[in-house]
Amino acid sequence: MLIKLTTASSMEKNLTYNQIVKKIKNLEIQGAQKIAVAAVKAFEMKLKKTKNKKELKKYFNELKGLRATEPALRNALSYCFNNYEKKPHVAKEVLKFFKESKEKIAEYGAKKIHDGMIVFTHCHSSTVEAVILKAKKQGKKFKVYNTETRPKFQGRITAKILSKAGIPVEHFVDSAGRKMLRKADLFLFGCDAITSEGKLINKIGTEMLAQAAQDFRIPAYSCTNSWKFNAETIYGFEEEIEERDPKEVWEKPPKGVKIHNPAFEITAPDVFTGVITELGIFKPETLVAIIKDAYPWMLK
Amino acid sequence: MLIKLTTASSMEKNLTYNQIVKKIKNLEIQGAQKIAVAAVKAFEMKLKKTKNKKELKKYFNELKGLRATEPALRNALSYCFNNYEKKPHVAKEVLKFFKESKEKIAEYGAKKIHDGMIVFTHCHSSTVEAVILKAKKQGKKFKVYNTETRPKFQGRITAKILSKAGIPVEHFVDSAGRKMLRKADLFLFGCDAITSEGKLINKIGTEMLAQAAQDFRIPAYSCTNSWKFNAETIYGFEEEIEERDPKEVWEKPPKGVKIHNPAFEITAPDVFTGVITELGIFKPETLVAIIKDAYPWMLK
Amino acid sequence: MLIKLTTASSMEKNLTYNQIVKKIKNLEIQGAQKIAVAAVKAFEMKLKKTKNKKELKKYFNELKGLRATEPALRNALSYCFNNYEKKPHVAKEVLKFFKESKEKIAEYGAKKIHDGMIVFTHCHSSTVEAVILKAKKQGKKFKVYNTETRPKFQGRITAKILSKAGIPVEHFVDSAGRKMLRKADLFLFGCDAITSEGKLINKIGTEMLAQAAQDFRIPAYSCTNSWKFNAETIYGFEEEIEERDPKEVWEKPPKGVKIHNPAFEITAPDVFTGVITELGIFKPETLVAIIKDAYPWMLK
Amino acid sequence: MLIKLTTASSMEKNLTYNQIVKKIKNLEIQGAQKIAVAAVKAFEMKLKKTKNKKELKKYFNELKGLRATEPALRNALSYCFNNYEKKPHVAKEVLKFFKESKEKIAEYGAKKIHDGMIVFTHCHSSTVEAVILKAKKQGKKFKVYNTETRPKFQGRITAKILSKAGIPVEHFVDSAGRKMLRKADLFLFGCDAITSEGKLINKIGTEMLAQAAQDFRIPAYSCTNSWKFNAETIYGFEEEIEERDPKEVWEKPPKGVKIHNPAFEITAPDVFTGVITELGIFKPETLVAIIKDAYPWMLK
Amino acid sequence: MLIKLTTASSMEKNLTYNQIVKKIKNLEIQGAQKIAVAAVKAFEMKLKKTKNKKELKKYFNELKGLRATEPALRNALSYCFNNYEKKPHVAKEVLKFFKESKEKIAEYGAKKIHDGMIVFTHCHSSTVEAVILKAKKQGKKFKVYNTETRPKFQGRITAKILSKAGIPVEHFVDSAGRKMLRKADLFLFGCDAITSEGKLINKIGTEMLAQAAQDFRIPAYSCTNSWKFNAETIYGFEEEIEERDPKEVWEKPPKGVKIHNPAFEITAPDVFTGVITELGIFKPETLVAIIKDAYPWMLK
Amino acid sequence: MLIKLTTASSMEKNLTYNQIVKKIKNLEIQGAQKIAVAAVKAFEMKLKKTKNKKELKKYFNELKGLRATEPALRNALSYCFNNYEKKPHVAKEVLKFFKESKEKIAEYGAKKIHDGMIVFTHCHSSTVEAVILKAKKQGKKFKVYNTETRPKFQGRITAKILSKAGIPVEHFVDSAGRKMLRKADLFLFGCDAITSEGKLINKIGTEMLAQAAQDFRIPAYSCTNSWKFNAETIYGFEEEIEERDPKEVWEKPPKGVKIHNPAFEITAPDVFTGVITELGIFKPETLVAIIKDAYPWMLK
Repeated sequence: MLIKLTTASSMEKNLTYNQIVKKIKNLEIQGAQKIAVAAVKAFEMKLKKTKNKKELKKYFNELKGLRATEPALRNALSYCFNNYEKKPHVAKEVLKFFKESKEKIAEYGAKKIHDGMIVFTHCHSSTVEAVILKAKKQGKKFKVYNTETRPKFQGRITAKILSKAGIPVEHFVDSAGRKMLRKADLFLFGCDAITSEGKLINKIGTEMLAQAAQDFRIPAYSCTNSWKFNAETIYGFEEEIEERDPKEVWEKPPKGVKIHNPAFEITAPDVFTGVITELGIFKPETLVAIIKDAYPWMLK
Repeated sequence: MLIKLTTASSMEKNLTYNQIVKKIKNLEIQGAQKIAVAAVKAFEMKLKKTKNKKELKKYFNELKGLRATEPALRNALSYCFNNYEKKPHVAKEVLKFFKESKEKIAEYGAKKIHDGMIVFTHCHSSTVEAVILKAKKQGKKFKVYNTETRPKFQGRITAKILSKAGIPVEHFVDSAGRKMLRKADLFLFGCDAITSEGKLINKIGTEMLAQAAQDFRIPAYSCTNSWKFNAETIYGFEEEIEERDPKEVWEKPPKGVKIHNPAFEITAPDVFTGVITELGIFKPETLVAIIKDAYPWMLK
Repeated sequence: MLIKLTTASSMEKNLTYNQIVKKIKNLEIQGAQKIAVAAVKAFEMKLKKTKNKKELKKYFNELKGLRATEPALRNALSYCFNNYEKKPHVAKEVLKFFKESKEKIAEYGAKKIHDGMIVFTHCHSSTVEAVILKAKKQGKKFKVYNTETRPKFQGRITAKILSKAGIPVEHFVDSAGRKMLRKADLFLFGCDAITSEGKLINKIGTEMLAQAAQDFRIPAYSCTNSWKFNAETIYGFEEEIEERDPKEVWEKPPKGVKIHNPAFEITAPDVFTGVITELGIFKPETLVAIIKDAYPWMLK
Repeated sequence: MLIKLTTASSMEKNLTYNQIVKKIKNLEIQGAQKIAVAAVKAFEMKLKKTKNKKELKKYFNELKGLRATEPALRNALSYCFNNYEKKPHVAKEVLKFFKESKEKIAEYGAKKIHDGMIVFTHCHSSTVEAVILKAKKQGKKFKVYNTETRPKFQGRITAKILSKAGIPVEHFVDSAGRKMLRKADLFLFGCDAITSEGKLINKIGTEMLAQAAQDFRIPAYSCTNSWKFNAETIYGFEEEIEERDPKEVWEKPPKGVKIHNPAFEITAPDVFTGVITELGIFKPETLVAIIKDAYPWMLK
Repeated sequence: MLIKLTTASSMEKNLTYNQIVKKIKNLEIQGAQKIAVAAVKAFEMKLKKTKNKKELKKYFNELKGLRATEPALRNALSYCFNNYEKKPHVAKEVLKFFKESKEKIAEYGAKKIHDGMIVFTHCHSSTVEAVILKAKKQGKKFKVYNTETRPKFQGRITAKILSKAGIPVEHFVDSAGRKMLRKADLFLFGCDAITSEGKLINKIGTEMLAQAAQDFRIPAYSCTNSWKFNAETIYGFEEEIEERDPKEVWEKPPKGVKIHNPAFEITAPDVFTGVITELGIFKPETLVAIIKDAYPWMLK
Repeated sequence: MLIKLTTASSMEKNLTYNQIVKKIKNLEIQGAQKIAVAAVKAFEMKLKKTKNKKELKKYFNELKGLRATEPALRNALSYCFNNYEKKPHVAKEVLKFFKESKEKIAEYGAKKIHDGMIVFTHCHSSTVEAVILKAKKQGKKFKVYNTETRPKFQGRITAKILSKAGIPVEHFVDSAGRKMLRKADLFLFGCDAITSEGKLINKIGTEMLAQAAQDFRIPAYSCTNSWKFNAETIYGFEEEIEERDPKEVWEKPPKGVKIHNPAFEITAPDVFTGVITELGIFKPETLVAIIKDAYPWMLK
């Protein structure tokens, strides 16, 4: 049932536009950044063939609409679509942004990890992964606690990658989260979207873990590039919380049992410490002011 | 992977003493009360064959030691062993106690369920099940929210039984617990042990759900007979938190990944409303005073 | 709109049984203890005329059913009905109990009031009034803060009586409660019923004030005799929260506006310090153990 | 005792400068925005007669000083007085700002209201009213819970207007606020002033309701244009909490009873979600950075 | 400035009645239990000389009044005075009670200490010391964190005794308490008095440490025999919080500086786990019910 | 043991560069601002002698490295070193900045102090001192509560200075902080560093006092110029928490007792109200956006 582990960079190399569209739609490509990267690559394929605005708009809209709850996808495509005429290498630029952002976040975030620490994480986030691997490369000695993250067991991806890199990993069911977090020193998690009031949309289970970290006064950071900021939330837009296939939870439930499978949940900024972005580390409610300076186009 | 659903009463009918011992040890018999009932039945088989104290003590000790974190098992066997000489039908008496206790708890607990409510539950507890079925039999109309309860998916047992009885059930992964509890009106959960300071040992995940219920001011009751009270905790004894087979969590984890599988966790009395027992409904820290009156032998 | 201020002792003197019944039903007699006293007096009138059990049972049931949410009424009448054959002066005994209880509570509670304090109170409770007047009689110098207590403005009764006794009173709307409580040193409030888990039913608004007192770490005591304990709650019974006449809130609301007028609300024991009763001062969840010793008949 | 319901736009049409001054002073014109609009209209009357700076300064100062706790009034008049020479239609511009701001806020805020919700509100705010009416016009089906808001019963104005628009309203005394909020999905309230640290000054009772919403994790937004921001608070200025006529609370209190009638109270930013302004939705502590960009003149 | 370290048993051996009286009064004998033991020994000296009730009452009253905030002193002397006629060895009995109680508490409490733990403690309590030494004698390996406890540096006594016994001790100023407690696994503290509602009077600083332990969900137990229970608190009596010599804080403060030197503070039962007594481990609010059974004379 | 009290302005007048270096290193010069001022003066001495960049860099690095946890020192020296070529009076400018900042903070902060208040403070901060003295000069009547602040008793400096100025001071041990804060109206404290997420580094004990102030809803402000902002924290840098000489805590501890002497601790922004800076009063997490506008050079 576990999703197959692929590296984003290699994966799309041999895929067609339509294959990418399908894979994003089917949740075969997962993780906010991987989706954005794949969609930009798909858009780039079309850009190579045509500069016709009307035609490109069709692809732009198709790609943007493949998944709800994905501001990085929307911001990246908007940037491409609005700038392709002036900037011939706009897709490359965006892909470079994602790559370099992750490197910066890894660098900033790794400073929060010290020898002897227990770093807690939930689900799988390629950005959190990058932070932790960076600290390991710097020679730091620490342990990772991670949840299995039902229903798709993405925590197993995290466990595999980190243990392969030589980091001791301790793994447990999601319900053991509060109990294990009590002993941790740092909680790092990913991000699917950030709102103008500093709320964070992330994998279901995040709020309860963040609340526990807050109770125990353990620093809790979301690791994310700032393109996850959804500027439409300034004007009241609310990210849709995707309900996924009930079969992921229970293949054949008895009659009369309705399955809920919310992929994400909203976590308020008062229960976590900050966001580690390529622009620096801030409380999430301040991000709107930082982005206004750094990426004014995002707020238009 | 789901444990097979059997009714305690029928199950042991055709089992030998040794088969019961094995099934308790292997976790094939689950649930504090089912275990106690099965062990008493096994002890009764021996009682029918001998009244020799020394010999019976051997069986008593064997049965008592089959599982940690099980005061009901220990209290029930102690009662049998200490009274079999005076009371020829001591095992029957104990089995009757368990049966009648559950009926009383069902009756008291059902009064907390009203039309239109959403009743939240975690894992599978035959006592919680009895309370909810009682309310249904009284013609009340309500919905049940329940978690799947990894790693053994006992929440599916709850879902099956309740939906079969015509109660609408909504089911989700454990991580969605806090999100769904927000909309519930009542949280009912089981109990494996109660300490003298009113702490409760129950299925892993209980503390985080109880904390959420407390945050949202939703009444949260443990449904349990009072023989789960562990009188040794008065003198500092600490219930062992059973770590179960790591394979339940992840069959073949990668090298370097250690699996934790704590079956239970401790919940402090300040985050739940009370316990619904056969003696009545009380704050758990008061139970020691109530039990002293009702079952003075338990405190010796 | 303010209810007329009468003293319980004088009031019923000239009333007939039927007049008392009517006045209790119409909320002309208010306050848990005043209601119980009046009902016992009514029952005494009948006792003087007949000892016929069947006939008396009719009056007993009629009086008991006049008001929901009134365990003192029910406990007092039960005591009379169950003992009138053995104890000819049972009604006197009950009236004496109420009188002496109030004196004891006044004595114990007054010890919590010290020179220079600000004592906060909500609504009108004759028991709280007795505590405060006792402290005044002892020569203590303190100030009282009190809410007006919509919709019936019973806070004005409190203000009148206390200011008449020479105690400086500062009075404000209910919404100013949290703001004013911040400066207070002690919060005293009444009680309509106590449950076996230590929950308290009292005038609407009590929970929010108790929560504020807890936040500010201001001691908060309910002043009440222990006959407000409702032993039926041990077995799951839930006090009904009386909804009163919507006209008390808004005489002629516009079409489409529904008025709620809940008289009481439930306050959990974790947000107040204790109960001051004639048996002493305890955390409310312990009261069940204290009552079992003091008034075993109440638990039958 | 209820203040007469008038629409701001129509009301001042036939009033003289002096009548407006009097009506603001006497609290006949209520609500931060209505006051600002009325004062700007009054200033416009004078502007039509003279451009003499010294003379206009007199009116400017008179109008500005009519009420404490009113930054919208002060910001609006300052804008008029400082720009009337360059901008002949400065008053029109300000009135247009207020009108368009409310429309924007209504549009942004209405996105927070969904079918099936219970929207809780306190007191009367023409901006909150606009948000709720907008959602209704969009065809959304929801219910409103609202407090009566003693001492002036402005909650009745809210109830009247919303029920007239076909929205089901449930109405109750202020003390029932916490109890009813427990069942709500969204809390919308107005605003009289915002400080540089993100504190909000609003109708007495707001803090206790916001605290309850925070406890129950119910989103709580203040709906307000950003001219309520008081830039002087950056430099330590503290809004005065107006004490109003004690007779509003109790016409003829007994001797020895002092009446407090605070109109407003301060709510800290950690207990509410954000502010919905014409510039967008933000955490209140971030507003200072947003305003610096949008209205630099306000910070001078 | 540090008080000299003496063992209670040896100390009083060579002292006269008057010397003991003086040493208790002058705070040369410290710690609730040491004071009670010394006073009982002094009373015993008089008992050996006379059985005259009137004369003994004088000594009884003198000894009882030597220190405020000392229920153990008062309970022990009351027991002696009320029983000396029936029980010739009443003083011996009381001294034996104190000795055996401490042994029992040490035994029960030591079960809470496990290998690898950090045990946090504040001030010096001979009972806490006994618990920790017991665990050490059982061969457990653990570390102790302890505060210096200004103004009398009693934490240094704790540090000396425990380090001498081979337990690693880490020591810091009181202000570092919250920071260090974050890493601890267990908080053990003493007790000067317990009230009927479960409040605890203990060394100044206890509430803030208990609150921190509660925030971090670290078990926090008071170690104390149950004679610290003050039965007069049932009837409203409030323990006086002794203000000690200002010179202990600052020998020669500048003019205009007033020194406060409160020795104790009150900690509410909602911020700690329980009390470890010779009768067992309970939530403090339940202790009144336990004592009623165990020592009925204490409640008369 | 108390550090000698000197005024910064006079002190360095007669010191050589090397003497200043030594005094900063030895903690003879204390307080973030005093250290920065002294270092700038030392750098100015060198500036008077040479303009050679390489040589000055050596001094710059030496001075910058004298103390950890001191962004004001680093920001001030960076400004000098980066601008000395363009601005001949760069050191004067910096010293003027510190002087004028303090005056502005005193002016803004004094507005928070009103007649009748109790102002609580911890340790000694020359900025807090300036705020309080300003309020006194304005003729306000208020009291100060202050802690002694072990191990260096800097609270005594505060007590001396303020009482000398005629302000009534009440002084107590650090452990009495929570108890005394309960009665205070305002908590003012200093600052050693501010991070990009709004965390504050200040004297050990600050977090526990801020938490208490938050619990009791008492406004708590850090008084500090904004050069304490550490821009490197944006990129993950973590201020080192200086461990000072263990002898400050206990001159000759027994063998086996390890002394911790952390000088500072980190306080998260959710437990205090704001920072009072020369730029105005803000929530600390917003400061990064304010500084970006005011001192863009600081963020490079």
